[in-house]
Amino acid sequence: MAEAIASKDDYRRYFAADLASHGLTQWRRRDGMRQTELSFQRLLRRLEYLENCRRDPVGRLLAAITRWRYKRRSVLLGFTIPRNAFGPGLSIAHYGSIVVNGNARIGRNCRIHSDVNIGETNGQAPTIGDNVYIGPGAKIFGPIRIGDRVAIGANAVVNRDVPSDVTVGGIPAKVISQRGSNTLVIDGCSAVGL
Amino acid sequence: MAEAIASKDDYRRYFAADLASHGLTQWRRRDGMRQTELSFQRLLRRLEYLENCRRDPVGRLLAAITRWRYKRRSVLLGFTIPRNAFGPGLSIAHYGSIVVNGNARIGRNCRIHSDVNIGETNGQAPTIGDNVYIGPGAKIFGPIRIGDRVAIGANAVVNRDVPSDVTVGGIPAKVISQRGSNTLVIDGCSAVGL
Amino acid sequence: MAEAIASKDDYRRYFAADLASHGLTQWRRRDGMRQTELSFQRLLRRLEYLENCRRDPVGRLLAAITRWRYKRRSVLLGFTIPRNAFGPGLSIAHYGSIVVNGNARIGRNCRIHSDVNIGETNGQAPTIGDNVYIGPGAKIFGPIRIGDRVAIGANAVVNRDVPSDVTVGGIPAKVISQRGSNTLVIDGCSAVGL
Repeated sequence: MAEAIASKDDYRRYFAADLASHGLTQWRRRDGMRQTELSFQRLLRRLEYLENCRRDPVGRLLAAITRWRYKRRSVLLGFTIPRNAFGPGLSIAHYGSIVVNGNARIGRNCRIHSDVNIGETNGQAPTIGDNVYIGPGAKIFGPIRIGDRVAIGANAVVNRDVPSDVTVGGIPAKVISQRGSNTLVIDGCSAVGL
Repeated sequence: MAEAIASKDDYRRYFAADLASHGLTQWRRRDGMRQTELSFQRLLRRLEYLENCRRDPVGRLLAAITRWRYKRRSVLLGFTIPRNAFGPGLSIAHYGSIVVNGNARIGRNCRIHSDVNIGETNGQAPTIGDNVYIGPGAKIFGPIRIGDRVAIGANAVVNRDVPSDVTVGGIPAKVISQRGSNTLVIDGCSAVGL
Repeated sequence: MAEAIASKDDYRRYFAADLASHGLTQWRRRDGMRQTELSFQRLLRRLEYLENCRRDPVGRLLAAITRWRYKRRSVLLGFTIPRNAFGPGLSIAHYGSIVVNGNARIGRNCRIHSDVNIGETNGQAPTIGDNVYIGPGAKIFGPIRIGDRVAIGANAVVNRDVPSDVTVGGIPAKVISQRGSNTLVIDGCSAVGL
């Protein structure tokens, strides 16, 4: 069901889609420090590629090194983000504090802000659709399904299913508008033909 | 009233209880990087032991070094956690952003998530019972008392007393269930006979 | 409309006001590690001075070095704080996670806690008055105006104008008291005659 990087081409396409969802067309190494979040996502995509596709000794070594760098960077930025959880077109808005459970699955073109927690209840974590906007401070948890093009408001606490094309907010989160995430996310996947 | 480490044996028991509350039985140095939060807690317990129990010159020197390491690690992980505030069996779920006031006192087997603030009003901070679960994003402040086995929901804002064995949630937090924290915390203290 | 550092004297006065708003009268280098937040603010004020006032080659070089140090420290502490956004008398309560949009303007003597996001909607960000207290976890966004001496409660989500001298809280934030931020902020600017 969930997409994951399965080849070197996928790796290139995933990161191109991530860039596009940030509103960028090109990665330049000298942007590393300025584009802290993108630099992190690049490392994430590289690690996904190495772990998913490379079984040769050199690949395993590179994976081990990248894993170590990824963990260090994660701690520095306040991110706990598992591999293969996010589809292509991910856009992390800011470093700060983001926790995502290893069993969570999030679709394409997700825009995610800081102080967000996507967690589990009894080991079961959310399945989130495509083009979902997750506002700052939102907490989402349990064996729930969130549709496509959903906007989750700031500080919302989501513990029930959410249909597609709505905005939810509050504690616990309720549908507060029939307008989805249209103007809040960039469809980086389409932009790169993925 | 509040428990604190008063001997080297206490130090061992506290950290054993912390490990047990994380669902682990043993600490291995090579887990340091993977178990970032536990590694931090180990440093906290060591610092509490050194500051509370060691008055000899070597002890003071070790305390000074440990204090410096503790501060550095705290900044890296986004933690502001005072000494002797948490009873044994502490389980910090994730690095990210946790602020606890120096006057707060929290009982045994506390499970605490990220983006939590336990703060003061006019210098007075909460007193929290045993086996309390503090969900991500919860803010708890003022001269209040929170009972035992309480579950505090995600993004709850708690500024009044809470009785034992309930779940609270919302802004301001209200009792939303008579079910307490039973399934949400591990009683690490009992597990190690503390 | 917004104040900004326009001379070396301003730089000194701004940081003196920042210190006073933290309840301090003097900066000592050896406090750098203990006063992590103040040390960060000192770097911010220095960078604002260098970028705003120094056009000579040495000034530009110092600005570049300070910019690099500022970015590094920002990532470590979890801060995304633009230059010239905050008036004098700023008091950042804790490191953790603070995101402020580059178009936001905040007046004098702001007291700001962790897990706060002051963001934009369609490129437009809030304008916030003087002596405003921003509680932990508050999210404030859009083309709104917040008056003077306002207290914004923990985890509040503010997306509409707020008049002066009130307390707001909840999701979405509503006026919950006619008492403003009086007892919650220190008027550091008056303390140093600014």
